[in-house]
Amino acid sequence: MIDVCLLGTGGMMPMPNRYLTALLVRYNGKSILIDCGEGTQIALRKGGWSPKPIDVICFTHYHADHISGLPGMLLTMGNAERTEPLLLVGPKGLERVVKALRTIAPELPFEIEYHEIQGDDEEITLPDMKEFRIKPFKVNHNILCYGYSMHLDRVGKFDVERAKANNIEMKYWSRLQKGEIIEAEDGRTITPDMVLGEQRKGLHLAYVTDTRPTDSIVENVSGADLFICEGMYGEDDKIEKAVKNKHMTFYEAAEMAKRAGVEQMWLTHYSPSLVNPKEFLPKTQKIFKNTIASKDGRTTTLKFEE
Amino acid sequence: MIDVCLLGTGGMMPMPNRYLTALLVRYNGKSILIDCGEGTQIALRKGGWSPKPIDVICFTHYHADHISGLPGMLLTMGNAERTEPLLLVGPKGLERVVKALRTIAPELPFEIEYHEIQGDDEEITLPDMKEFRIKPFKVNHNILCYGYSMHLDRVGKFDVERAKANNIEMKYWSRLQKGEIIEAEDGRTITPDMVLGEQRKGLHLAYVTDTRPTDSIVENVSGADLFICEGMYGEDDKIEKAVKNKHMTFYEAAEMAKRAGVEQMWLTHYSPSLVNPKEFLPKTQKIFKNTIASKDGRTTTLKFEE
Repeated sequence: MIDVCLLGTGGMMPMPNRYLTALLVRYNGKSILIDCGEGTQIALRKGGWSPKPIDVICFTHYHADHISGLPGMLLTMGNAERTEPLLLVGPKGLERVVKALRTIAPELPFEIEYHEIQGDDEEITLPDMKEFRIKPFKVNHNILCYGYSMHLDRVGKFDVERAKANNIEMKYWSRLQKGEIIEAEDGRTITPDMVLGEQRKGLHLAYVTDTRPTDSIVENVSGADLFICEGMYGEDDKIEKAVKNKHMTFYEAAEMAKRAGVEQMWLTHYSPSLVNPKEFLPKTQKIFKNTIASKDGRTTTLKFEE
Repeated sequence: MIDVCLLGTGGMMPMPNRYLTALLVRYNGKSILIDCGEGTQIALRKGGWSPKPIDVICFTHYHADHISGLPGMLLTMGNAERTEPLLLVGPKGLERVVKALRTIAPELPFEIEYHEIQGDDEEITLPDMKEFRIKPFKVNHNILCYGYSMHLDRVGKFDVERAKANNIEMKYWSRLQKGEIIEAEDGRTITPDMVLGEQRKGLHLAYVTDTRPTDSIVENVSGADLFICEGMYGEDDKIEKAVKNKHMTFYEAAEMAKRAGVEQMWLTHYSPSLVNPKEFLPKTQKIFKNTIASKDGRTTTLKFEE
């Protein structure tokens, strides 16, 4: 299962009751943060979390509202005496941008590892967590920008008949069920598929912000259990502004959610001019029913079926 | 009169109920901000102000908790379609640090002017506001750091007898009272002192943070109407930490306030570990009675006597 917390729902600038859009994802003891704007560390603390155990920070792009909180976040991690390295993932330019921002955070008691996204078909996994795949994909903003899909794979059910038919000793069963490939004492290589049924439906969480709608987004978020998507504007007359600034209206987000057949969509990254996002929800839900106009701190736990 | 708002009272990191220490000062339609940490723009908005009309931002030093909010503040000013130039004042390195931070805020619709403090006897004034003098002075932190005194001068009372004795025509009186020097029609140069009595007591506001106590601070804040001073620690056993990190305890701040003979002291820049600053107030007030343990958003208006 995956814990999800949308720390903020604002775009452009942080406001007293709306922090900047950023997502905290937790799986199997690991914490992944997507985007880190001014105030994200406050939102994190408000939710009762500490920045110290964050393993990875992924950036969609380098507009200030998505990265301006990084120097403070790094220093707060440092003040908490973190020593474990921190992995940063983002579009090309990552190291250059982070090093510039570290002019005001030069000394840290931990290492920073940089992973600059190279193409559009990369998958990032963390050590000992191959079943959790982070997949960045290009979106369409006025600078290079990525969305992120996170897939948690689920192995098939254990199939005793198959295990017996393949003559697999019982002592290997539990390791195989966890996905391990085993060199058996008799010299055979035993793979999990020799004891498992067909792979079951896993979990899929997608995060997309600062973009116009694209076919590639629809493809990448297809069938997601939770699609977190920008909705910069709700007002009908803001479509021109959305096109000009390379953002989306609620209705464009909803059209994508519908086409992609996702389970649920959470809107976020509201324009500061959008005072009451809920006002535009009925019209949005006519396009895609399972739309939520998120508020800061919205959380859920994604669980496997059954 | 001078309006003063202490936007935040925290040190090191912003927290949900304690923004980073920064001061907004308003005089005669001009707004001056001292320090701009992560979240300062949120605190500003919380107080009902806009960042757009800020004329000057002064920095004490370049630790992140005093400048990390600058890129966001600049962009928010830009989004508000500000076109007037913005003056930044700070220790040496100002332009280098700001340019690095502007990696994520490269395009702004207004100019930035830099004023790097050169020595310890500079006075900065704004156009048409010679009576309001900003005076930076060095303090003792682990990097170059300045405190700021702001002096509002007050001219003497208008002295009709003196004006008449000096044979000054009535048509010049109001301009002279405002401090203007006049080339009269008869060729004479008429100066304000020819119609005014002795200069009266003005106003003095001082802001000092991130330092050990020093004689120079006492000298520079001497007789201030309001002395805003860091008090990083309240607990008795934190004195070693204060010495090591080049900060102050409440009691050290109070000793300075007493020596400097200020009217009132506001404590600020609390350590995140200091949950309830008021707890240590009675002991502090035994040293300097007129001490306030400030909360975020504390405001006052300093007024001339009488």
